Amino acid sequence: MSQSPKQSADRTAPTSADVARLAGVSRATVSYVLNNTATVRISDGTRRKVREAAEELGYVPHAAARSLRAGHTRMVLLPTASVPVGPLYSAFFDELQWALRRLDYTVVQYGSLGMEADEAARAWAELRPVAVVSSGEIALTPQGVEVLKRSGAKAVITLGAHRVEGAHALVLNQSEIGRQAVAHLVRRGRRRIGVIMPEERGLDFFSEPRLEGARQAAAGTGAEIVPLPLRYEEEPAAALAGRWRELGLDAVFSYNDEYAMLLMRALQDAGIDVPGETSVVGADDLLLGRLLRPRLSTVQIDMVIGRQLAELVDRVVRDPDGTPERHDLIAARLIPRESS
Amino acid sequence: MSQSPKQSADRTAPTSADVARLAGVSRATVSYVLNNTATVRISDGTRRKVREAAEELGYVPHAAARSLRAGHTRMVLLPTASVPVGPLYSAFFDELQWALRRLDYTVVQYGSLGMEADEAARAWAELRPVAVVSSGEIALTPQGVEVLKRSGAKAVITLGAHRVEGAHALVLNQSEIGRQAVAHLVRRGRRRIGVIMPEERGLDFFSEPRLEGARQAAAGTGAEIVPLPLRYEEEPAAALAGRWRELGLDAVFSYNDEYAMLLMRALQDAGIDVPGETSVVGADDLLLGRLLRPRLSTVQIDMVIGRQLAELVDRVVRDPDGTPERHDLIAARLIPRESS
Repeated sequence: MSQSPKQSADRTAPTSADVARLAGVSRATVSYVLNNTATVRISDGTRRKVREAAEELGYVPHAAARSLRAGHTRMVLLPTASVPVGPLYSAFFDELQWALRRLDYTVVQYGSLGMEADEAARAWAELRPVAVVSSGEIALTPQGVEVLKRSGAKAVITLGAHRVEGAHALVLNQSEIGRQAVAHLVRRGRRRIGVIMPEERGLDFFSEPRLEGARQAAAGTGAEIVPLPLRYEEEPAAALAGRWRELGLDAVFSYNDEYAMLLMRALQDAGIDVPGETSVVGADDLLLGRLLRPRLSTVQIDMVIGRQLAELVDRVVRDPDGTPERHDLIAARLIPRESS
Repeated sequence: MSQSPKQSADRTAPTSADVARLAGVSRATVSYVLNNTATVRISDGTRRKVREAAEELGYVPHAAARSLRAGHTRMVLLPTASVPVGPLYSAFFDELQWALRRLDYTVVQYGSLGMEADEAARAWAELRPVAVVSSGEIALTPQGVEVLKRSGAKAVITLGAHRVEGAHALVLNQSEIGRQAVAHLVRRGRRRIGVIMPEERGLDFFSEPRLEGARQAAAGTGAEIVPLPLRYEEEPAAALAGRWRELGLDAVFSYNDEYAMLLMRALQDAGIDVPGETSVVGADDLLLGRLLRPRLSTVQIDMVIGRQLAELVDRVVRDPDGTPERHDLIAARLIPRESS
């Protein structure tokens, strides 16, 4: 009844030979023009003829074929975040995209949900990206870095808490967030400080170093740190607030502003005065935290702009044999308000 | 001093010929085994030998080469959202990814920030995806759909408010959200209803149809709809609250729960009683809205699960010549609480 999908695709897809024929030039000229090859001199008139012919036929160059010829693509591959990303991350990612586009790279995000690290590295390598920026959820191994480099990736950059051999590192210094929060609480005379540890999947990458930073800030001050697992729901928050006095806590660093808002409401409903009986500090400086009464104290996170990451990608692609670099991507600053 | 990057990549990248040599089989056998070709019989022993040789050499198949042979990839391409995405979208996207993975597709997101629709379609076509799911920010044109199909995409599906000729449509019925909110306010006897229109880039794709739904719900009831532009910041919210009585409004549908929380705080600070003097309704049913006093009324959005989208992708890839389908992806339900 109908032709097979394969046949119909083959019949309609125009090739660069079709473009060359219509424009009256060689296939090599078509390739030079459409790939913006700067090293070959071609007149503006010829360029225009080729572009018009390509447009008329609906011809689109094949990135795969181009990458086979070039040995690599201009593709920068980022694994997709599988946890909800907030406005901070969105702004960072937007800027990274713009900056890479300006440098003539294409940003592609790869859904790596549920993959093991080496499995993910192989899947990424199949796309032959020229650069890979791996975020914290997939903990690249040195073997994974090697697989990517062998398949032509010139830049492998990890965004995360740990360095991986062979890769450049942008260190997301999460521990500084917990350190700032707890140092502030200790200065306010607090001595038994809870640290909320979200039970949701994927967040331990952020919460563990924040707890570590909290411990560092408390060390030698006489203050105690008490990790408090919590799901982001009203009932477990109410249950935790119900045990609050039994736990003997006088302060809490609540992972971020959303957990802080959840917990502060539960504490208030349980009759615990904030900040009189317990201080609460969040993180992220969300607008919503400023709308609460008492206004929420928070740790503001200044992310070094995406443009710097884009420049690192480009520098490493141009000089892939340089020594792995390390850059810190977060600066944290406590903003005291009324809740602490 | 050091060899050029290109040379070093060429020297170290193992090929399928290397794998064939080490395993003592033909290159065709290597290709069959590593691409999981089901139609060719190969013994388990041979499969193991090939896999071990590939592992030892660090060989990764080239997705581009495979796609050139096959005429297409198993790649499902989604444009990256350039507005902050909330937990609802994240859950939907996670499920879509899992479901497509199970059907042996790979999900790749393409950063299309700031691109024109046809420019974006051409850039996507260069990757030769077998399917494209385009979300609302890039309004695909019929020409864009044609470019994608000519380059081998078997399924082009739009996620958005409008249908595009030649593409299948998952309609995000945003207007239903405004309709539900305003129908509720009218039932409560409200007669002059503000509708918050965020001034942030990229949100009019959501806010315009919500306003349209609000107007539909008000039509013929005697209630008036007043669009209220607002930036998501405290100062403009305070300024709007300062003009509230002058505007003569007795209710507001606040785009979503975050804008509702911002505005409700500003109204309360301006001495306007909620819900006595003005009713407030949000949307999204965020946990945070339940923590406010008064508790925030909202429109809950039930998104049809990502698995159904994955099944649509797979069905259309297998039968690309079928009639374009249309499915509704959102059901909205009002949840009355204390603020209205």
